[in-house]
Amino acid sequence: MAIRLSSLFLRTLREDPVDAEVDSHKLLVRAGYIRRAAPGIYSWLPLGLRVLTKVEAIVREEMDAIGAQEVHFPALLPREPYETSNRWVEYGENLFRLKDRKDADYLLAPTHEEMFTLLVKDMYSSYKDLPVTLYQIQTKYRDEARPRAGLLRGREFIMKDSYSFSVDDQGLEEAYQAHRGAYQRIFKRLGLEIVIVQAQSGAMGGSRSEEFLHPTPIGEDTFVRSEGGYAANVEAVTTVAPEAIDIEGLAAAHVEETPDSPTIDTLVAQANALHAKDGQQWTAADTLKNLLVAVTLPSGEKQIVAVGVPGDRAVDLKRLEVSLSDALEVGGEVEVNQADDSDLRSYPMLVKGYIGPGLSTDAATLGTESTTGIPYFVDPRVVEGSAWITGANLQGRHVFDLVAGRDFTWDGVVEACEVREGDQAPDGSGPLHTARGIEMGHIFALGRKYADALGLRVLDSNGKLVTVTMGSYGVGVTRALAAIAESNHDERGLIWPRDLAPADVHVVAAGKGEEIMSGAEGIVEQLERAGLQVIFDDRAKASPGVKFGDAELLGVPTILVIGRGYKDGKVEIKDRISGESREVDLSIVVDEVVKETKSVASDG
Amino acid sequence: MAIRLSSLFLRTLREDPVDAEVDSHKLLVRAGYIRRAAPGIYSWLPLGLRVLTKVEAIVREEMDAIGAQEVHFPALLPREPYETSNRWVEYGENLFRLKDRKDADYLLAPTHEEMFTLLVKDMYSSYKDLPVTLYQIQTKYRDEARPRAGLLRGREFIMKDSYSFSVDDQGLEEAYQAHRGAYQRIFKRLGLEIVIVQAQSGAMGGSRSEEFLHPTPIGEDTFVRSEGGYAANVEAVTTVAPEAIDIEGLAAAHVEETPDSPTIDTLVAQANALHAKDGQQWTAADTLKNLLVAVTLPSGEKQIVAVGVPGDRAVDLKRLEVSLSDALEVGGEVEVNQADDSDLRSYPMLVKGYIGPGLSTDAATLGTESTTGIPYFVDPRVVEGSAWITGANLQGRHVFDLVAGRDFTWDGVVEACEVREGDQAPDGSGPLHTARGIEMGHIFALGRKYADALGLRVLDSNGKLVTVTMGSYGVGVTRALAAIAESNHDERGLIWPRDLAPADVHVVAAGKGEEIMSGAEGIVEQLERAGLQVIFDDRAKASPGVKFGDAELLGVPTILVIGRGYKDGKVEIKDRISGESREVDLSIVVDEVVKETKSVASDG
Repeated sequence: MAIRLSSLFLRTLREDPVDAEVDSHKLLVRAGYIRRAAPGIYSWLPLGLRVLTKVEAIVREEMDAIGAQEVHFPALLPREPYETSNRWVEYGENLFRLKDRKDADYLLAPTHEEMFTLLVKDMYSSYKDLPVTLYQIQTKYRDEARPRAGLLRGREFIMKDSYSFSVDDQGLEEAYQAHRGAYQRIFKRLGLEIVIVQAQSGAMGGSRSEEFLHPTPIGEDTFVRSEGGYAANVEAVTTVAPEAIDIEGLAAAHVEETPDSPTIDTLVAQANALHAKDGQQWTAADTLKNLLVAVTLPSGEKQIVAVGVPGDRAVDLKRLEVSLSDALEVGGEVEVNQADDSDLRSYPMLVKGYIGPGLSTDAATLGTESTTGIPYFVDPRVVEGSAWITGANLQGRHVFDLVAGRDFTWDGVVEACEVREGDQAPDGSGPLHTARGIEMGHIFALGRKYADALGLRVLDSNGKLVTVTMGSYGVGVTRALAAIAESNHDERGLIWPRDLAPADVHVVAAGKGEEIMSGAEGIVEQLERAGLQVIFDDRAKASPGVKFGDAELLGVPTILVIGRGYKDGKVEIKDRISGESREVDLSIVVDEVVKETKSVASDG
Repeated sequence: MAIRLSSLFLRTLREDPVDAEVDSHKLLVRAGYIRRAAPGIYSWLPLGLRVLTKVEAIVREEMDAIGAQEVHFPALLPREPYETSNRWVEYGENLFRLKDRKDADYLLAPTHEEMFTLLVKDMYSSYKDLPVTLYQIQTKYRDEARPRAGLLRGREFIMKDSYSFSVDDQGLEEAYQAHRGAYQRIFKRLGLEIVIVQAQSGAMGGSRSEEFLHPTPIGEDTFVRSEGGYAANVEAVTTVAPEAIDIEGLAAAHVEETPDSPTIDTLVAQANALHAKDGQQWTAADTLKNLLVAVTLPSGEKQIVAVGVPGDRAVDLKRLEVSLSDALEVGGEVEVNQADDSDLRSYPMLVKGYIGPGLSTDAATLGTESTTGIPYFVDPRVVEGSAWITGANLQGRHVFDLVAGRDFTWDGVVEACEVREGDQAPDGSGPLHTARGIEMGHIFALGRKYADALGLRVLDSNGKLVTVTMGSYGVGVTRALAAIAESNHDERGLIWPRDLAPADVHVVAAGKGEEIMSGAEGIVEQLERAGLQVIFDDRAKASPGVKFGDAELLGVPTILVIGRGYKDGKVEIKDRISGESREVDLSIVVDEVVKETKSVASDG
């Protein structure tokens, strides 16, 4: 049955909603596809739900095609399995937690590794039962600190999540590759350009993971690519460290006056003015900047950590968070913020703007073995034998020729610095270029983390108990819909890819008079008989201008106008994408519309 | 594609799950349709999800047919709208409440009146926009005190809920009747016998409501019917009160010794032994039993209330709860429990086993105006002029001829007594018969409660602002699936109605040997080409006995066995319902199966 605008639950808006930052959000609200219910939480109106159903159908078809079996888990889950895997704590504030009337702890699941693991454990016991891959398309919850950009980063959202269970690494690799292929097909059918990048696994754990990023300037993720084919999320990029230098024969460290030089810029200026380097200029790359950061552990506890990086590099707190989460071995993701003055006051031997690791390892001021006891981590460029200008812990003074490994040591190495355009790819494939993207999918070779924690073991072909190896794989379904809208619109409205549009054709009865309206009715009937989904603007009191505006806003790719030409046997077919329109004879209009709309749809 | 049991994620169980009380729960778990994730919270396995999808499709079709438009709301909702409607409090412990990371209050919605009202308010402003009916099929949450019977009373469950918005009472009546008709068609297509009964509206509010009950001995709801056509939930039955009696000339009240008579039975015995009635026996119906109950108000506060009922009637706490919720005017549902001894100790003038309202209104011991101040409510049978034997607040003594309205008064009348087989229908249509049922659907003529609270008003045809009138309508989707299983099974397993079965035919390759297996493969292929959904038991190592058992457990109505007869060109078609089987020629088997499975399916 045609969707009639005279009765459709729809009210298009001329103004952008005040809280909307990105075009997809503005247009989906203005065109009546979604409405905000709470921060990061949206209601789906009739047109939005139709598009969402089509996105889900494509995801479902491609998952079925790789032999994945659909199931459906609850969103409300008991604490215990997540306690066992440690994610009850690891997820920190991102998890919605609640209690039932008996005071038992529950959560709203952000992802379901634990439950799938327990289900397979409950049902299967032999290698003969494996491999198996299960999936669901389900509502997920994540208490984002900053929900934003409409559906792109919500707190209640729909994901397709799947889980593979294999008896050995080879099986996991096959399931991983099957998903990789299915995801490529899904995003191709959704019309979304994708770059597959290496990624960090974060709270998920596991040995290997790749993200499917959709490149867009409004993306929250920064990724890098080299011409040689390397691609990674910036959090996953590893720094190419220089070779260690022979310490023998290097100049001894010496403290120098560098008045008023609390920043790298002022330090470099003072160093060049007062302590000129032989034949060349000091640069920021010669300095070692030591930063105190406040680290919030998964347990909620706070810890001060020092990080030493070359002075010409900015610190990337997100990269540092990922890297420190590993380095500190605290079983979860940490949160990193700049330390403030009150943190610094607890360490009177450290002077703001002039912090350094000490003049020698015997008099260390940074590091767990030092007088402050502050854990000290350095950038990979701080290799043994490298010499630095760095703070002397004295107002207006710096140490020169402080040699790493001779004069100071550290507790570990972290990736704390920003990745820059032109940095070398870690695999030697050339310089990196940076871009922004949205994470549309993520595949994880989890390995045995969850199976170990929850005891999922099966008998192998020799009758021996072995731990199952798993993968987990996600596609953001509501996010994909928003990304499609973001990449398919113009200033007048949405422009849906044909397979996803809420209808095949949008028929506008433009003009007053019984003749045009009943003529349009007849054409709509014929189009439906030809198997097309039709939106029919049959509103009696709306002007042609309002109707054209709404048709362009709603974004069905083919618009059919029954207007003034109708009395002469002519109607107009408009292409929403090109903006072109052509007049066609009434006698062939149905064939023409079918040809236009079905030529692409039949690919699906 | 056929569902192959060699790879289907399925493990049938021979034993009933220990926590299962009813057959549908036992069989749905044993046949691998669902698994328990937490109390009242279930996961859907592949076969279960297939049936669920079919149930949802039927509901969706019938809702679309009455012009309802599908939308989808979040489950996680902010507190404010529910605060405004007072349901944040009214729902009491049944509501799952939680806080987000910013300490804002949220809930998991048990039903969505508030959000739909606000959405329509946000979008519409004129009578010309109405009527509109919106619906969703969505996951709901309710923190049941006693989740039980598997999917029949869960804490996370799927409902179809719809909401009608009309400008006047006539519009509401039309929407109400349209839903009534759609529900009758839905349950007919689901194969569920339904009785429509008058009901109480409870926390929903509103003027009128009817329940769609499925009669079954395991139902939690008791309902009554008269031969004259009356049908109601017991909570909605009103008592036919006798006429008031002229007080003039009635005997005066007098206290009598009735030693050791703390119960109605002992009291009746003592009364007949010591104070014989003229020419006849005292019966329990002559006595007035006064009960103290502890009432928990929606606010959580506790209050003691006294209830006076004829001694021959048991108190029905559920009826009392519904009736007291109204009578106390506390804006929500109360919870009622028997008072315990500690409650009684606060009132030393009341003697356990001998409680009464006092010898005269001047010396009242029950009622807000009495010495105890305990609110006193009586059964409708306690009419003015009726005379009673009741407690004298003295150990071993009762008052006789205590006349209602002369010697004692009350704060209000409540429906506190059980409804009994043979009681008269309130509409005079004859004696009532009682039965048990499960609530499958509920329709409410809400009226203006929510529109008033949330300010949903539109301009009428005279340009005047009028408050919109609403209906709300629910179908328990997951509960319907369980009820269907409950009403369609035998001791060997499930027996699905054809339109809802996970497949059209269950093909069993019974017997060893390549010939049978490849023959079965060929037949499966032909059946699929004929448009049938096939479950194919292609397990190489399972015995025919195991396969037959599983086929009967899974419950597809047509089972096709390819076995020993195959070499002679014969296969066997078994009817799961009748248990009958017939041998057919290989040449006609596909036609025969199609005929059998499609004859009914085409009704749908």
